[in-house]
Amino acid sequence: MKSNGKVYLVGAGPGGVDYLTVKAYRLLAEAEVLIYDALVDEQLLKLVPDDCLKIHVGKRGGLPSTPQSEINNLLVKYCQQGRLVIRLKSGDPFIFGRCILEIQALNNAGCDFEAIPGISSVTAAPLLAGIPLTDAELSKSFGVSSAHQPDILDWEALSRLDTLVLLMGGKHLREIVDQLIKYGKDKSTPIAIIRKAGTSEQQVWIAQVSTVVEHVKTVRLSPAVIVIGEVVDLSRFSEKM
Amino acid sequence: MKSNGKVYLVGAGPGGVDYLTVKAYRLLAEAEVLIYDALVDEQLLKLVPDDCLKIHVGKRGGLPSTPQSEINNLLVKYCQQGRLVIRLKSGDPFIFGRCILEIQALNNAGCDFEAIPGISSVTAAPLLAGIPLTDAELSKSFGVSSAHQPDILDWEALSRLDTLVLLMGGKHLREIVDQLIKYGKDKSTPIAIIRKAGTSEQQVWIAQVSTVVEHVKTVRLSPAVIVIGEVVDLSRFSEKM
Repeated sequence: MKSNGKVYLVGAGPGGVDYLTVKAYRLLAEAEVLIYDALVDEQLLKLVPDDCLKIHVGKRGGLPSTPQSEINNLLVKYCQQGRLVIRLKSGDPFIFGRCILEIQALNNAGCDFEAIPGISSVTAAPLLAGIPLTDAELSKSFGVSSAHQPDILDWEALSRLDTLVLLMGGKHLREIVDQLIKYGKDKSTPIAIIRKAGTSEQQVWIAQVSTVVEHVKTVRLSPAVIVIGEVVDLSRFSEKM
Repeated sequence: MKSNGKVYLVGAGPGGVDYLTVKAYRLLAEAEVLIYDALVDEQLLKLVPDDCLKIHVGKRGGLPSTPQSEINNLLVKYCQQGRLVIRLKSGDPFIFGRCILEIQALNNAGCDFEAIPGISSVTAAPLLAGIPLTDAELSKSFGVSSAHQPDILDWEALSRLDTLVLLMGGKHLREIVDQLIKYGKDKSTPIAIIRKAGTSEQQVWIAQVSTVVEHVKTVRLSPAVIVIGEVVDLSRFSEKM
């Protein structure tokens, strides 16, 4: 039995192999155990050795995801067996990756671990839709939030930022725009909704805060990244990209 | 002469080859012209073919950087010569990458181009210091801003966000903490300063909003990423990382 196991908490980026980091790519090629989430791209699962143990812990079909305590136990168990364990999460592990419970478990068990950054859809989705999140004139600050529970957010503060990036807001679009308008965001502010960014199925809708609910009412929005701010207009220069 | 030139606006990530994307790595290996900034890591310049034309357009020594109009002209010129041109910028090209003038020039000239995301120090620096930017309990939203001109920012809105990431704020630390405290940020809020994230020279200082100026008064802070918020405390679980 080997003694030096290690767990790598690896960001998979927004899609396939293209936007994976070189370090993640090389680590996957050496993985002995791969523990991965639902949103991780199929292509990445092919990068591990044939004899790597692959454990899916995300939601599948109608089944719930593996309980967090069980994921923690798996990470600790295989690390203590001396294995090279990869915990693969879509995007970046430290942005909406809910890593801290796994880190606390690894820390408590004295397991060696390392986090490897990935490209978050927070930044990749706007870029792949031609929208810069900062701009010398139009966007000095941007804010990022999950919007799956819009009622717990400070919309007064968020509305004042030049640019806003919202994840998991597809089901709450009406409430989001109502809050933005309530706190002073101009109704004509451009808004983009980017679905499945970085994949071959990527779709982008552009409208205004006051028109977007009507604009996308017949389409399926999840998983989507929402960008609100004048920078959305700059995407017109990248239309041919 | 080839007719199908293309310009790739590529994010180099925070440091060397490890955190480059696989797509950027493969494109660099095919580059015919490489146009790069001052902060791009030396290791990346070795990834291009021997006969690739390398043009440095960032600040060097005491000399100013190449004027933006000249950079635009270089991109268009080599693209129209049918070359595979890489415009390499540190971090992510669409976050503080000032890409839009280059994109407008390429668009106006009818040049084919594509932006390739990179890992921004906005997200990499906190991660490499063990700080998650989001947390179910402590950080529902985070804000990002450049702080090289603190007086133009809306500190009232920024202070209300759970977590704040500031770039280029090393020279204005006192003004930053004064503004945060003025707008209600608790004086005991933890703050981290991460210098040269993702390189072998990475340094991290952790203090509180009210003590940080004294804490780092003898050290050189640039280039640094500043993180303010309760999530900074979570880095204690990653100390051995």
